[in-house]
Amino acid sequence: MRRVGMLTSGGDCQALNAAMRGVVKCLFYSGEQVEIYGFYDGYRGLIYGNYTMLTSRDFSGILTKGGTILGTSRTPFKTIKDPDPNGLDKVEAMKANYKRLNLDCLVILGGNGTHKTANLLREEGLNIITLPKTIDNDLYGTDMTFGFQSAVDVATNAIDLIHTTASSHGRIFIVEIMGHKVGWLALNAGMAGGADIILIPEIPYDINSVIGAIQKREERGSKFTILAVAEGACSKEFAAMSKKEQKEAIKNSRYPSVSYDIADKIIAATGIETRVTVPGHMQRGGSPCPYDRVFASRLGSEAGNLILQGEYGFMVGIKNREIVRVPLEEVAGRLKSIDPDASIIKEARMLGISFGDE
Amino acid sequence: MRRVGMLTSGGDCQALNAAMRGVVKCLFYSGEQVEIYGFYDGYRGLIYGNYTMLTSRDFSGILTKGGTILGTSRTPFKTIKDPDPNGLDKVEAMKANYKRLNLDCLVILGGNGTHKTANLLREEGLNIITLPKTIDNDLYGTDMTFGFQSAVDVATNAIDLIHTTASSHGRIFIVEIMGHKVGWLALNAGMAGGADIILIPEIPYDINSVIGAIQKREERGSKFTILAVAEGACSKEFAAMSKKEQKEAIKNSRYPSVSYDIADKIIAATGIETRVTVPGHMQRGGSPCPYDRVFASRLGSEAGNLILQGEYGFMVGIKNREIVRVPLEEVAGRLKSIDPDASIIKEARMLGISFGDE
Amino acid sequence: MRRVGMLTSGGDCQALNAAMRGVVKCLFYSGEQVEIYGFYDGYRGLIYGNYTMLTSRDFSGILTKGGTILGTSRTPFKTIKDPDPNGLDKVEAMKANYKRLNLDCLVILGGNGTHKTANLLREEGLNIITLPKTIDNDLYGTDMTFGFQSAVDVATNAIDLIHTTASSHGRIFIVEIMGHKVGWLALNAGMAGGADIILIPEIPYDINSVIGAIQKREERGSKFTILAVAEGACSKEFAAMSKKEQKEAIKNSRYPSVSYDIADKIIAATGIETRVTVPGHMQRGGSPCPYDRVFASRLGSEAGNLILQGEYGFMVGIKNREIVRVPLEEVAGRLKSIDPDASIIKEARMLGISFGDE
Amino acid sequence: MRRVGMLTSGGDCQALNAAMRGVVKCLFYSGEQVEIYGFYDGYRGLIYGNYTMLTSRDFSGILTKGGTILGTSRTPFKTIKDPDPNGLDKVEAMKANYKRLNLDCLVILGGNGTHKTANLLREEGLNIITLPKTIDNDLYGTDMTFGFQSAVDVATNAIDLIHTTASSHGRIFIVEIMGHKVGWLALNAGMAGGADIILIPEIPYDINSVIGAIQKREERGSKFTILAVAEGACSKEFAAMSKKEQKEAIKNSRYPSVSYDIADKIIAATGIETRVTVPGHMQRGGSPCPYDRVFASRLGSEAGNLILQGEYGFMVGIKNREIVRVPLEEVAGRLKSIDPDASIIKEARMLGISFGDE
Repeated sequence: MRRVGMLTSGGDCQALNAAMRGVVKCLFYSGEQVEIYGFYDGYRGLIYGNYTMLTSRDFSGILTKGGTILGTSRTPFKTIKDPDPNGLDKVEAMKANYKRLNLDCLVILGGNGTHKTANLLREEGLNIITLPKTIDNDLYGTDMTFGFQSAVDVATNAIDLIHTTASSHGRIFIVEIMGHKVGWLALNAGMAGGADIILIPEIPYDINSVIGAIQKREERGSKFTILAVAEGACSKEFAAMSKKEQKEAIKNSRYPSVSYDIADKIIAATGIETRVTVPGHMQRGGSPCPYDRVFASRLGSEAGNLILQGEYGFMVGIKNREIVRVPLEEVAGRLKSIDPDASIIKEARMLGISFGDE
Repeated sequence: MRRVGMLTSGGDCQALNAAMRGVVKCLFYSGEQVEIYGFYDGYRGLIYGNYTMLTSRDFSGILTKGGTILGTSRTPFKTIKDPDPNGLDKVEAMKANYKRLNLDCLVILGGNGTHKTANLLREEGLNIITLPKTIDNDLYGTDMTFGFQSAVDVATNAIDLIHTTASSHGRIFIVEIMGHKVGWLALNAGMAGGADIILIPEIPYDINSVIGAIQKREERGSKFTILAVAEGACSKEFAAMSKKEQKEAIKNSRYPSVSYDIADKIIAATGIETRVTVPGHMQRGGSPCPYDRVFASRLGSEAGNLILQGEYGFMVGIKNREIVRVPLEEVAGRLKSIDPDASIIKEARMLGISFGDE
Repeated sequence: MRRVGMLTSGGDCQALNAAMRGVVKCLFYSGEQVEIYGFYDGYRGLIYGNYTMLTSRDFSGILTKGGTILGTSRTPFKTIKDPDPNGLDKVEAMKANYKRLNLDCLVILGGNGTHKTANLLREEGLNIITLPKTIDNDLYGTDMTFGFQSAVDVATNAIDLIHTTASSHGRIFIVEIMGHKVGWLALNAGMAGGADIILIPEIPYDINSVIGAIQKREERGSKFTILAVAEGACSKEFAAMSKKEQKEAIKNSRYPSVSYDIADKIIAATGIETRVTVPGHMQRGGSPCPYDRVFASRLGSEAGNLILQGEYGFMVGIKNREIVRVPLEEVAGRLKSIDPDASIIKEARMLGISFGDE
Repeated sequence: MRRVGMLTSGGDCQALNAAMRGVVKCLFYSGEQVEIYGFYDGYRGLIYGNYTMLTSRDFSGILTKGGTILGTSRTPFKTIKDPDPNGLDKVEAMKANYKRLNLDCLVILGGNGTHKTANLLREEGLNIITLPKTIDNDLYGTDMTFGFQSAVDVATNAIDLIHTTASSHGRIFIVEIMGHKVGWLALNAGMAGGADIILIPEIPYDINSVIGAIQKREERGSKFTILAVAEGACSKEFAAMSKKEQKEAIKNSRYPSVSYDIADKIIAATGIETRVTVPGHMQRGGSPCPYDRVFASRLGSEAGNLILQGEYGFMVGIKNREIVRVPLEEVAGRLKSIDPDASIIKEARMLGISFGDE
């Protein structure tokens, strides 16, 4: 009898259910005796022993369903080592519940913060398998994370919808795309949506360059301009600040996000009506796209395979179109950001897309 | 030879092209000699004589295309009678261009503001046919306006996407739906998206009632609540103010819109994380839904028919599923808002939907 | 304590779950004590006593879900009066189960065949409320049935997708749309998808007229033609046959459906490559469109209201945008087909659409 | 001044326009003088000198548009060397038109057949750049072809829609997916749509194994089964035949495609209602998915870059997420099919998916 725990942690995204279904289908189909314990609301469920036993019925029909049947919560890594308000040692509590249930291993689906905690639990002696979930695609050790392509689809649809109004009214539109630290989502949605200017954290922008790009378009007869701006897009001035100065600057800003700041500066310089659209959490929602369903199913299948073989301590990822296992210690705490000299950036520039740094 | 002018005015929306295609297909298919003059960017094109001659080729393939091939602009009715910055009398300029081109009539597609100006031009002796375009569905004299059902689809999709995250994280989400004066869009998208609370301008809300509805859901075990809030939703206090006081209140508010104000009050009262999503102009964009394509085509067809019969001074609308002609003077300046005692409101209440006024 | 039975019968369609959710939400929200008995697989569940008790949890999250949580089956009306293979009197069996469970009433969701049986049960003394479900929109006594608009969306999407290939390759494409007896779906999807020729059961076609319409398009420079053909489209020759001759003709035909027959005749006459696409059961599937979700919820709400008032023997439908109750005996056995002289047909003709009878 | 010819050949698919736009945007944005000659309807336009000069305006707004603005046609490679009905040598005619227009190079977008002809033209001394277009993903030398992922999306949507009916009625459904020679599309759409059985040309099936898989599902309590069957799926008996015998077998079959044959055999063995759905050409149509838009734009960008560098004789493809150039002679005449031992097949089997060969 194998006893497998499972939890989803961090911001929710598409294909979490598809990935869990993959793990469980593989285990049940193997013919071995397996019990699945699902912990609710991320690490919180493991800490406080809030779980349920799951049957194959629970996983029926969830391949196409967004969100996570287990619920999730953000557990900031920083505080996982601190005791909870009642003085409970959270790490010890997780270990205790793991042992109390006599688990063979724990399957954890999550992003960067989640992986730090997962690796900590591995160091504490638990058997851990992780799956790379994030719409940000910023996990080290895998070419791709699930949720990303689905989020690209939602964000691109937002740009497509805005295109209509922008072209009918001859306005400037900024579509703010999720991504505080990396620009994968803004870059791909921007290219897919035909954005003229794409601003990402990895390439600090010069507002005059942004305005110049708009004016050049005007001169060439374009009636409108669309900008895809990552939440974490930053100006060269901001990038040059110390962390402390940056925090101060954000705190003192009168704008809810950088997009509104950019909009105001464009209006001031060009006089053209400039609107901001923020699809926000819509980007995490809805049914996973077919790409993510296949990808998450493959990851889940291989995670199940590792469990059947008793191989632990890995994130299951993808490299060159093949599903691979990556040691957790190589993944935890490392960010996969866009190299400003990457060929996709060069290709985008050759298409005339401005990154605001020319 | 018939000479027909055409323009689209006000905020753009879905099915403008479908409607124009309907008019033109009908005219060209009739076998009569027809010339179509398309004025650019709403009334502005008519004022400044900025137009183009359109052929059947221009209308090929646009049934499914969002926006308007003619461009549009908002021309506030209030100022249409004032001279332009160069002292030009705008109404006289429009009459002059109409006569200079020797037009038989002018087909105008637009919403409330547009219809006021259209009726003014009719009073000035021009032959006018209008088509009811607005995502707000607030035009008097017609059961439905085109653009509305397409906007419902986009707004509902926004709520659907948010549902995933709301249910996975156990949060409160406010989806802000377009509609400053009327709540048709918020009501329909809210009901279609399964919103628990719907706030519309026609039914002023009591914030304590809103919070109470959330708390009742919590007590019954619901982990999350979704609110569909019209841009023009207003509290009972706000509704009781004079117009002047209202303007002052909006000016002094530290919130970009009422949704953020409501969110803050919910957080203060319940302590539950509450997020606001603003799909904004996305609601005007994209390909018209099949309903709007059929509807706009039928309207266009009947408009063409009226032109062939030389019958002018009408808006073409729909009543009880039949396309009808409505005298322009009956339409102009009148708003179609939701009756708080309408049966659809009662039906929604019976489903347990709160309007924040209980 | 109210005891309410519920079943879905006939071909499945979108918004069945939304409608049932509406009924149940209304009943539970009323504060009265209610028990819901769901019978599985249509009348079959009522005949054989195959049912389950449903809680509000079962109806959570199903507003957007296609199909029916109760399952369905086609029970041809003709045989409902005949005993089953084991000699069981089916009508008596249904009455017995109704009484054994001490039901106050039975809510039945279905189309034409379903309504005949529902009315029979009413005549036998059961308390019946029905809801008009069918993608065909052919139920008498209501302007609209739920499922119809969702099916229009799927069928229109099929035509949209085919448009691309048709225009790129310069071919003729026939898209076969569901509808054996009536053409509502083909008419609306055809108009929404920009079909050039629409063939429906209500307007028998002349194949030479169809070919002539294609040739006229060729002469005017059109590179391609799209036909939306209802499953039940029939030629003038076929329409003139006796029922017996028609059956014989269908039996002897070497084509799987009329669309292939038409395709062959077009190829023979024009030499142009002609392809048939059959979206088939796709038209019944997927999440209901926002229109159907609102509509089905309103119907469900009113059905719940009738139950609370103890008013039985009605179908809940819609007339002139208001939810109404219609006596079951007025509905049963009557078909709502398209009047060939209806204004929507005239409007379509004015747009240049051919119905193959010119 | 650079003079660049361009044509699209073979079956149309999504992202052809996006790819051409990429090439042209790159060339125009480079600042060099460029003239673009678009040949109509594939090689036919090059043979008969049917072309147009294209401006940047022609490429505006086509990123999201399906089909090809140049039209396309299938020119079977076998006959390209034969004279046309008027005795014209087609290869010489293409060379003559290329020279007459003084072209620097020719950009050809197409699949397998197209690449054979493209390589022939290269051998004849023309400067050729190709882009890998096909929904089949069967081009050698590139990990991916554009159109494929968009087709996966359409085919998966078809399975999603069918799922509803299959589960409500408890039936067996076969969804026939495009792919005569390779199974990439059926495999990916099948996995994404949650198909239980996937039949592809690369893994010949045993009908008894297929029926056995259905019966095992029945025994485990599954009410329905969905099969994703590639057009080119073949039984072990068929696979063992000689080419001549296969042709004879197809000719003598009374089924329009293998799916109907399989359906009949399943009905005969199980007695369960089994339906076939054929989305057919829908799979080639509609707006390209965001993945394909980015991918095609990157390919186009690199093709433009090669032209600017005067580097010819390559297909531009993708390897390990990087855009690469592949010598045309390595690509032409080679098929990329699925290795039955590929890890994705093993992963699918571990999820319980049957390939009908167990």
